[in-house]
Amino acid sequence: MTRRIRKVCRTLAGHKVDALLVTHPVNCRYLTGFVSSNPYLLITASGDSLFLTDSRYIEAAEKQVEADAVRLLGKDAFKSIADALKGRRVRRLGFEADHLSHARALKLIEALGARKCKPLIGVVESVRAVKEPGEIAAIRKAIRLSERGFRHILPLLRPGVRERDIAIELEFFVMANGADALAFDTIVAFGPGSSVPHHATGRRRLRDTDVVLIDWGAHVRGYTSDLTRTLLPPRMPRRTRDMYHVVAAARRAAIARIRPRARRSAPDTAARRVIEAAGHGERFTHSLGHGIGLDVHEQPGLSGRAKGTLRAGMVLTVEPGIYVPGRLGVRIEDDVLVTPAGCEVLSRLPTHARPWG
Amino acid sequence: MTRRIRKVCRTLAGHKVDALLVTHPVNCRYLTGFVSSNPYLLITASGDSLFLTDSRYIEAAEKQVEADAVRLLGKDAFKSIADALKGRRVRRLGFEADHLSHARALKLIEALGARKCKPLIGVVESVRAVKEPGEIAAIRKAIRLSERGFRHILPLLRPGVRERDIAIELEFFVMANGADALAFDTIVAFGPGSSVPHHATGRRRLRDTDVVLIDWGAHVRGYTSDLTRTLLPPRMPRRTRDMYHVVAAARRAAIARIRPRARRSAPDTAARRVIEAAGHGERFTHSLGHGIGLDVHEQPGLSGRAKGTLRAGMVLTVEPGIYVPGRLGVRIEDDVLVTPAGCEVLSRLPTHARPWG
Repeated sequence: MTRRIRKVCRTLAGHKVDALLVTHPVNCRYLTGFVSSNPYLLITASGDSLFLTDSRYIEAAEKQVEADAVRLLGKDAFKSIADALKGRRVRRLGFEADHLSHARALKLIEALGARKCKPLIGVVESVRAVKEPGEIAAIRKAIRLSERGFRHILPLLRPGVRERDIAIELEFFVMANGADALAFDTIVAFGPGSSVPHHATGRRRLRDTDVVLIDWGAHVRGYTSDLTRTLLPPRMPRRTRDMYHVVAAARRAAIARIRPRARRSAPDTAARRVIEAAGHGERFTHSLGHGIGLDVHEQPGLSGRAKGTLRAGMVLTVEPGIYVPGRLGVRIEDDVLVTPAGCEVLSRLPTHARPWG
Repeated sequence: MTRRIRKVCRTLAGHKVDALLVTHPVNCRYLTGFVSSNPYLLITASGDSLFLTDSRYIEAAEKQVEADAVRLLGKDAFKSIADALKGRRVRRLGFEADHLSHARALKLIEALGARKCKPLIGVVESVRAVKEPGEIAAIRKAIRLSERGFRHILPLLRPGVRERDIAIELEFFVMANGADALAFDTIVAFGPGSSVPHHATGRRRLRDTDVVLIDWGAHVRGYTSDLTRTLLPPRMPRRTRDMYHVVAAARRAAIARIRPRARRSAPDTAARRVIEAAGHGERFTHSLGHGIGLDVHEQPGLSGRAKGTLRAGMVLTVEPGIYVPGRLGVRIEDDVLVTPAGCEVLSRLPTHARPWG
């Protein structure tokens, strides 16, 4: 039994199940080291693990999967699961209700009987929230590479360049320099587009009165970075710079609250207070941040309503923002590791107010 | 009511529901023209349509969505759906059981009552399978751009180049020349990697005894291409060239069977017969093809077990292959439009046996 499977095992009694069926490809990758688009990992409370996948992956799985046994899925995947459960004395099987479509869940329930199946949420995600040293090293690499990408495109920010030209150049740079994949479609927003937190990068050309907001990330060895920087226009009203300073102060206030055993809601609350005090309370329209790891959005969420506490080994984004609809937005996003002593800001790009160009 | 929503409306009686809740973002985009990661589109059999989304998208949705009404989702999305149904006299609501997680489906059922909810599969997908002229035009554009990308990387195929260098250059080219997005991670396989239909592009360097298999696609205006070409090694045994000719003959046999009212299974059967006759029956390990459109895999599937018939306006991949595990694979993939008179091969890259370099 691998260390990660053991961690999941220990939580099963608390969920009142004898076994867990993991069907989310990212969770299966985390637990077995193996990438398949059609994986089924069965873990029993007694510590037994069985990995099932289809013929496209079975040869590689037999060599690479870190589980006690590997088996080929039959034509009916859930019948194979039912067969695998025979002789394993499982009275109640938990399954990932947020990662299985209703149609597939109905087939599972049909194969096993409704009384045997218990929908669960976030079992593996809770374990994934606390990173091991190797995972943190991969996130650091992803951040370093992303930062090189950002520095690479800085000289290209000249009046007339298009948002999508910058995005494509940044993406090409990180891929050509060793990223496995992009974390998400890069957001490059010039001027009013920056006021939309999920702006779709487009064909707008840069003007010398535009702020430039870039939100980007890349996977390295599976693990992701997630960063945002806002660059100010060469010519701007005083209030734009002031707004930037408010966001930077909110960022510092949030980071000051990140340490083991702190409430998960504390960093958001601290950042929001700074922004509210400056009169922009209504303009910080999203939560402070989220965990990153194999996924770019994972546990723990960092909203003001989040329950529970922070733990050493969590890696979080801290991304306060102020958005003035139709005019401009400012967001600064860093990636922060919770350490035994407090926290470490993993990203190193400067955060002071500075113009592009 | 838009034409596409009307098409869906007409099918609802056949599914024995008074209304349909569409939650799959791609299906919502198809029906309303609007891209949201959190869309809910309610369509009643009487022809009424209501689009709901969250605060991130609501402003844009109110301007752009092609539906009778647009409403902001409340904190509990399914309660908003229940509210919307009040006064709409819906006794039975179909929902997309393959696009809603079990966890979300349970919330829907809790909000509406189990008797009111009917899980359905493929309702919108069946309508999407037959393309309109504008959709076919977008697919043509995606194919043309993809073909330019392929020609762009041909001169780079020299001994020593890495698989991922070729993939990144191809992807950068299509993005820089107007693609919205890539269709999937480009497969570039040198030598033995080509024997794995879902090869993960890696760091292998090209050798002059390697076949080169490239499977790639790009979205333009939302619509995708999906193509594969296999280039032969400069130095190769006779049997490699023979294998290529078998795949090319299977491709021709399949295309000859594509016309309106033909059985969906006929092209696969025809291609498989050619490959079996050449003694490679066991080595054509996947089905012949699939529909393409907003998704790179959509209706109709083109396997030997497919039910139903082809219709004019369907756009299909035809992708026979022969795979010798651990040694090499050959696949040729084209995109084919079913026309009233028969079919048109939309892709134009040559398919005759030719070496790289």
